[in-house]
Amino acid sequence: MSRQRTGLGTNQESVRRHNLGTLLQHVHRAGHSSRAELTSIMGLNRSTIAGLVGELESLGITEQALPSQARGGAGRPSSGVGLSGSGPFVIAVDLGVDRMDVARVGLGGVIHERAAAPIVGGSEAWQVAGSVAALVRQVVEDAPMSAPLVGIGISVPGLVRRTDGLIRLAPNLEWHDVSFGSIVLAALGVDVPVSIANDADLGALAEHHRGAGIDIDDLIYVSGNVGVGAGVIAGGMRLEGAGGYAGEIGHLRYNPEGRLCHCGNRGCWETEVGAHAIARAIGIPEEQAASLGELLEGYREPTPELRLIGSHLGHGLAGLVNAFNPQVVVLGGYFRALFRLVRVDVQAALADRALPAPLESVTLALPGLGADSVLLGAAENALEPLFVDPVASLGTAITGVGTKLAG
Amino acid sequence: MSRQRTGLGTNQESVRRHNLGTLLQHVHRAGHSSRAELTSIMGLNRSTIAGLVGELESLGITEQALPSQARGGAGRPSSGVGLSGSGPFVIAVDLGVDRMDVARVGLGGVIHERAAAPIVGGSEAWQVAGSVAALVRQVVEDAPMSAPLVGIGISVPGLVRRTDGLIRLAPNLEWHDVSFGSIVLAALGVDVPVSIANDADLGALAEHHRGAGIDIDDLIYVSGNVGVGAGVIAGGMRLEGAGGYAGEIGHLRYNPEGRLCHCGNRGCWETEVGAHAIARAIGIPEEQAASLGELLEGYREPTPELRLIGSHLGHGLAGLVNAFNPQVVVLGGYFRALFRLVRVDVQAALADRALPAPLESVTLALPGLGADSVLLGAAENALEPLFVDPVASLGTAITGVGTKLAG
Repeated sequence: MSRQRTGLGTNQESVRRHNLGTLLQHVHRAGHSSRAELTSIMGLNRSTIAGLVGELESLGITEQALPSQARGGAGRPSSGVGLSGSGPFVIAVDLGVDRMDVARVGLGGVIHERAAAPIVGGSEAWQVAGSVAALVRQVVEDAPMSAPLVGIGISVPGLVRRTDGLIRLAPNLEWHDVSFGSIVLAALGVDVPVSIANDADLGALAEHHRGAGIDIDDLIYVSGNVGVGAGVIAGGMRLEGAGGYAGEIGHLRYNPEGRLCHCGNRGCWETEVGAHAIARAIGIPEEQAASLGELLEGYREPTPELRLIGSHLGHGLAGLVNAFNPQVVVLGGYFRALFRLVRVDVQAALADRALPAPLESVTLALPGLGADSVLLGAAENALEPLFVDPVASLGTAITGVGTKLAG
Repeated sequence: MSRQRTGLGTNQESVRRHNLGTLLQHVHRAGHSSRAELTSIMGLNRSTIAGLVGELESLGITEQALPSQARGGAGRPSSGVGLSGSGPFVIAVDLGVDRMDVARVGLGGVIHERAAAPIVGGSEAWQVAGSVAALVRQVVEDAPMSAPLVGIGISVPGLVRRTDGLIRLAPNLEWHDVSFGSIVLAALGVDVPVSIANDADLGALAEHHRGAGIDIDDLIYVSGNVGVGAGVIAGGMRLEGAGGYAGEIGHLRYNPEGRLCHCGNRGCWETEVGAHAIARAIGIPEEQAASLGELLEGYREPTPELRLIGSHLGHGLAGLVNAFNPQVVVLGGYFRALFRLVRVDVQAALADRALPAPLESVTLALPGLGADSVLLGAAENALEPLFVDPVASLGTAITGVGTKLAG
């Protein structure tokens, strides 16, 4: 009997922490919320909600906020819950191919500070980690002393093993089997949780939570980032696959007579819509492929060559629409700028090749988060432990980061 | 307060029914189980389990069974739970392209009776439904009078809308927007729940529950059934997509210089590995394509033409491995016989085109359920309401079916 009671006690505590995390996640996603809203959404009674809110306040995560004046309705307004300005935060790192973006991101997906630096071609992982560490020091410099750093989220343009975050392959960085998390921690000299994931997977995550895919259970984020990859949300869940490598759709066989791909095969979809193909289409050297997005922004009208690439994009997307039957396909990376130019061609090619049933319910969309989907996805990934168990997550966080890292 | 108590009462009742369904599902999957096993697996105490078992017995679903003699161990053996011989059953219907299989299937996936009939090319839905009804009468004739028919599960080689089971397109039957469930019920003159789904999706479901994919959370069932389709289990869940159409991988662009596909495009993967391609490879008329499986069984050695098709199969599978990162790919339909013949070529082509990371953890496998994956998947789909709420499901079931349908 005593064994059973212990089990029961543990369960009650874990249920309470779960509720605490769920409430926090709601405020994180929806922003400032009234207690009445929280009571209704969580299906818990007012006193339980009051207890949870009190605990989040005492943990320094949320603070009392005045009820929004905009709201009408009779009766005493219920007091609101807002996010604390000196609450927990994460560091988000978006490793591109030729540049990195680093940001200090708070709850609510607020970017407090950001910095960027180039990545020189052929850099070793430890050199890139050194640059990351320098940017991290920069963005935490003005963080409130009492604000806890919960973790670091890193996005990589490559295949990341789910179990431990090992970067199995980042083709454009020429990395194989790199444990980049440990290397970054070594460069920083601190110990906090690090989460690493594929860039397109993180783009999908952020767009699903606070971008073009809110309340959309089936969405694909297609990332154009020199290589081409996809992040898939299916039935509201991240599609990860057995090892965490799902979504490598850049290497779908597309044209067996086509160009040689860096993967060793001929005619992968990426060879027709990847950055190098677009660079050729607009007549710039392939070495400048990584800054395609900016170059494409400068176009007012599409060239015939770009329109052809738009068709290849649409044809390939048709395969994804048939295979995954998404409601929304978000076009990220340099596809943002390309899609603005050749939307008609992409749509026509998609309609040409997709089956009618999955075609009728799909929308092609630009990212709701602009160029920051992947960066904010890295932040969401690092924040996730807070929503599972805020108490445990704060237990592994560190405060006074600005001072500690400066020293 | 009274409102809250009502809510609480409802919750306790729904929790009890959920537990009842979960316990039944366990016995359905694992077969004869001891009460001790059920206590341990469900994490409930002995008296709660005893109550649930008693209720399932009084509903006529399970019966007391002697503990298995094979098991060793000390202590008083706990009495076992087995499935009742006159318990609930479903009708499973596997519509192929040129034949249909109909079976009476009980809990535990036991096929009690089965029958088959040809489908004549160009048949209208009502004609096919008439044949289905005749086979249903045949397989229920000897069903125990007291055994309740819980529902009818139908597999279709086509796209089925998730919300209502409308067959949007079954290309090889030439059906568009057919509400086949209602047509079958009209032909039978009874009212029971009907569930309709895509053949490959049902193959995946059955292989996941009791075939080659037990305890495998990420698996793909690739069905060769004139057309080519896939059913995907991702993270232990069915990948359905927004409308229920996910898995239409037969129309992935494969060879832009290739043959015209019935979908209107050129060079879909299906045009290289579909039944018509194989029929050409072995020199039989395309009209006989539907009976390919049997013809291929007759081969001892692969021909060069079949080996080439094996390569195309492997190349296409590489795309699926990259996109979905499955742990197991099950080759069903006529791919069973083909894979036995040209396994070496399929494996080599897969290894040639798949990325190393997802390749290293994937296994190509024959169906654990032989030729019956899809039929048993249709049964699983029809049984599912029993595992959600056995009491409600039995409420919509009908008994004495043999007599009712004969009249």
